[in-house]
Amino acid sequence: MSEQPVDDMVVTPWDVSGELDYAKLIEKFGTKPMTGSLLNRIESLVGDLHPMLRRGIVFSHRDFDWLLNHIEKHGKSDFVLYTGRGPSGNTHIGHLVPWQFTKWLQDKFDVHLYFQITDDEKFLLDPINRTYAQMQAYAMENAKDILAVGFDPEKTHLIIDSKAGPKFREVATTVSSRINFTTAKAIFGFTESTNIGMIYHAAIQSAPCFYPSVLLGRNIPVLIPAGIDQDPYWRATRDVAEKLGWYKPTALHSEFIPGLGKGGKMSASQPNSTIFTTDTPKQAGKKVKRAVTGGRQTIAEQKELGGIPEQCNVFSWYRTIFEDDDSALQKRYEDCRSGTLMCGPCKQELADRVVIFLEMHQSRREDVEDLVEQTIIRE
Amino acid sequence: MSEQPVDDMVVTPWDVSGELDYAKLIEKFGTKPMTGSLLNRIESLVGDLHPMLRRGIVFSHRDFDWLLNHIEKHGKSDFVLYTGRGPSGNTHIGHLVPWQFTKWLQDKFDVHLYFQITDDEKFLLDPINRTYAQMQAYAMENAKDILAVGFDPEKTHLIIDSKAGPKFREVATTVSSRINFTTAKAIFGFTESTNIGMIYHAAIQSAPCFYPSVLLGRNIPVLIPAGIDQDPYWRATRDVAEKLGWYKPTALHSEFIPGLGKGGKMSASQPNSTIFTTDTPKQAGKKVKRAVTGGRQTIAEQKELGGIPEQCNVFSWYRTIFEDDDSALQKRYEDCRSGTLMCGPCKQELADRVVIFLEMHQSRREDVEDLVEQTIIRE
Repeated sequence: MSEQPVDDMVVTPWDVSGELDYAKLIEKFGTKPMTGSLLNRIESLVGDLHPMLRRGIVFSHRDFDWLLNHIEKHGKSDFVLYTGRGPSGNTHIGHLVPWQFTKWLQDKFDVHLYFQITDDEKFLLDPINRTYAQMQAYAMENAKDILAVGFDPEKTHLIIDSKAGPKFREVATTVSSRINFTTAKAIFGFTESTNIGMIYHAAIQSAPCFYPSVLLGRNIPVLIPAGIDQDPYWRATRDVAEKLGWYKPTALHSEFIPGLGKGGKMSASQPNSTIFTTDTPKQAGKKVKRAVTGGRQTIAEQKELGGIPEQCNVFSWYRTIFEDDDSALQKRYEDCRSGTLMCGPCKQELADRVVIFLEMHQSRREDVEDLVEQTIIRE
Repeated sequence: MSEQPVDDMVVTPWDVSGELDYAKLIEKFGTKPMTGSLLNRIESLVGDLHPMLRRGIVFSHRDFDWLLNHIEKHGKSDFVLYTGRGPSGNTHIGHLVPWQFTKWLQDKFDVHLYFQITDDEKFLLDPINRTYAQMQAYAMENAKDILAVGFDPEKTHLIIDSKAGPKFREVATTVSSRINFTTAKAIFGFTESTNIGMIYHAAIQSAPCFYPSVLLGRNIPVLIPAGIDQDPYWRATRDVAEKLGWYKPTALHSEFIPGLGKGGKMSASQPNSTIFTTDTPKQAGKKVKRAVTGGRQTIAEQKELGGIPEQCNVFSWYRTIFEDDDSALQKRYEDCRSGTLMCGPCKQELADRVVIFLEMHQSRREDVEDLVEQTIIRE
């Protein structure tokens, strides 16, 4: 008999699967846990805390304490935000959650956001089955979803890799000069058969950490709100920063939003357990009602034993995105545990909220269409 | 005693040194020798032959026979020229020789020329001691020398890597998706400690082979007049072309122009044996008069035995650039062999011609300054 691996959690920039243990991820990636003291410092700077901060969904960071020291000294707006999206398909709700948090950061700290869309990387990952033009088209579609989240168009700069300009290229080339194949291989798991475009892409994805400094003509810190799976990119970047005299990027890591099926993060490759921003409200409602929950086999059993919200995708969606009110969330948790709330109505309520959310998002998506061109940075 | 290597000839894209044996280079690089039959076909297409063709200075080719078949069928202008320059310093006369031949090809075949200036590569080769901005500045200076050669500004497109646009990047990314690290390593001699920018540059230097086809929206052959040392780049490119359905690039290889000192090709790293386009006429004249020749130790000896033009840098310069007239060249050869012509007057005459050439080049260099911007392609 072959042994089962004790730990089947896989978290890389290209794959998140298995049962996720966030304490182990902090250990694995060598980051630091979010603390109450850091939350207090945020609150005293901006007046309140986003639900993802209050609820521990933002669970880890790199040098966020250093960034707080910096802005406590130089002003709360003395940094920029950088996050990204790999446009291999349509946007889903799992993407929107960290973007909403990023918007909150932009609003509260009043800072510029550089949003990279890596259409070139998505092509390079599978050049046989994908075309460059397809990935560019997804990039433009995804850009609408990004702007529909409500970022300040005056302070938001879309870096679409295939459209990036000479200053951006200069930063990428400079970064690439300081990463050798050994380092790239160790960090990203490249092999001898990896194509040279993917190898180089490490530099393209690092470049936005320094591009704002080059544009501004002075060193400015960068905060990256992202999944911890993207952390390897910033590890290479941090080494380069030290060599080149730029600030090392700082990061806030949030939990992965689960799909409606079993395990891992919400993924476009499992369309039935994922709600896309382009789904019709009817499709979306159906998917929610088929969700895997933390409920029991029968209603009788559930009334007796109560449900398990900790193992419930539906509860997870309320916690991360569909219930802003902490006391309402707490009540839902207790009603589930006590066997008062059954899965049927709980799913129905989520489906209703998802439908409203989608309708609003889709309408905003149309409204921002004209903003896409003007927010693309081509310098 | 340690053994001397029998063959100390080194020819790579980054180094040409030792005693050059062109027959061996053809064997080493797997190219084909230029033949009288190919020369006849050129002559019947365009009416005459450039001295570099008549004198065998263009000694090798890749698929030039295929290209002749193509244009004999589709018209003599149904291809484009591609050549390049790595701007690590000022231009010298050794660079101008193949450019003059390229201009002749442009004029005679009436074709477009894509001229790549790899400022990014020159930075990536030595990021510690060079800056990106320095290499960009050299690129702009070199561009003036290129245009001063007299290329048709309406049909000449400078691809300055640091200024290249999104369509060019698309081609480079596409090429990079089909070259893996194993291939790049084998062809270019990369190691694990090569930086990822240099690794990727193989794709940047291949891209101009296909960029004209993308711009035109149809497959068009490319002819590369270049030193044989650049051949490895086209080997990778030819593999990619087959995979992507583009024409494989064809090439004409010319001999290296020797410096005025001993061995190898003219090199900016030996400034005393190299004449730069920015040298004053006085400096240039002095350098020629100090040249290593094929002359004997004493005048008496030379009168008795004659000189050895085959081993003479001065004669080599007459042969490649400073004597268009075949019968005058033949006479100089015979006068040297017979002991009639001494090195002093032969050098003096070359110095005079070099000075006139430089003065004309420098004046044209000023005239074309305004053309640089309009010939840079940024698509």
